[in-house]
Amino acid sequence: MSAALESMELLCVTDATLTPEEREAGATFAPKFDAAGLLTAVVVDHADSTVLVVAHMNEEALAATLATGKVHFWSRSRGALWMKGETSGHVLAVESIAVDCDQDALLIRAAPAGPTCHTGARSCFYRQIESRDGEPVLVRTDA
Amino acid sequence: MSAALESMELLCVTDATLTPEEREAGATFAPKFDAAGLLTAVVVDHADSTVLVVAHMNEEALAATLATGKVHFWSRSRGALWMKGETSGHVLAVESIAVDCDQDALLIRAAPAGPTCHTGARSCFYRQIESRDGEPVLVRTDA
Repeated sequence: MSAALESMELLCVTDATLTPEEREAGATFAPKFDAAGLLTAVVVDHADSTVLVVAHMNEEALAATLATGKVHFWSRSRGALWMKGETSGHVLAVESIAVDCDQDALLIRAAPAGPTCHTGARSCFYRQIESRDGEPVLVRTDA
Repeated sequence: MSAALESMELLCVTDATLTPEEREAGATFAPKFDAAGLLTAVVVDHADSTVLVVAHMNEEALAATLATGKVHFWSRSRGALWMKGETSGHVLAVESIAVDCDQDALLIRAAPAGPTCHTGARSCFYRQIESRDGEPVLVRTDA
């Protein structure tokens, strides 16, 4: 999709009884929420595919994302819907959304208006595991 | 990391009582598993950053991944540890692992030995949401 995402209404197909073949190969969008009502969303920078953040969406967050073209998540810790950037201004403007084979994860390409991580880092993945004497330690990669 | 991941032993720091500052900014790897004992792992192709698969790891799967340098997951549907590619041969050789700010998600850069998706697609994210009369439908992007 070259332009930003067109506004869409999420219909209630989430409980559709699709066959495995329809779910994996068909054209019906039937997101599979887990027992807690959530699916996983990975957001990458549209410009260079850098993974910015991994978070969760419930049906409400997904519907809001599709309707507005701005990434919304469900906060498990706060038990609340939130638009990414609603306080910082660093919204994520959706360019495209892909779904995986079993429709329980989304891959969102977006244009970030600023650093995505609440720590101020561009991406939440700013530390890498390295081995120190055979044990994992974290080393910053954004310095 | 230029070479493949060095073998590491995962020690039991998963229940460490870190302050939020230590968790977000420190060098201690203390993966935060959810109520089901899982964290989210995103695997991207080391060569071009294509997102290949999103799946889950419990502590056993993470330890096996660190020890062997091959991506292991926990299958929620089968309730079993599995090495990605154990039947297909399409293993994912780990190049590096990053952790996110609150340490409940991993970003793994890997070299895939073949198509990652069980459907035969290179990536599990082979369909994109498009709008048809304001409603989302799925369109293949790998054809």
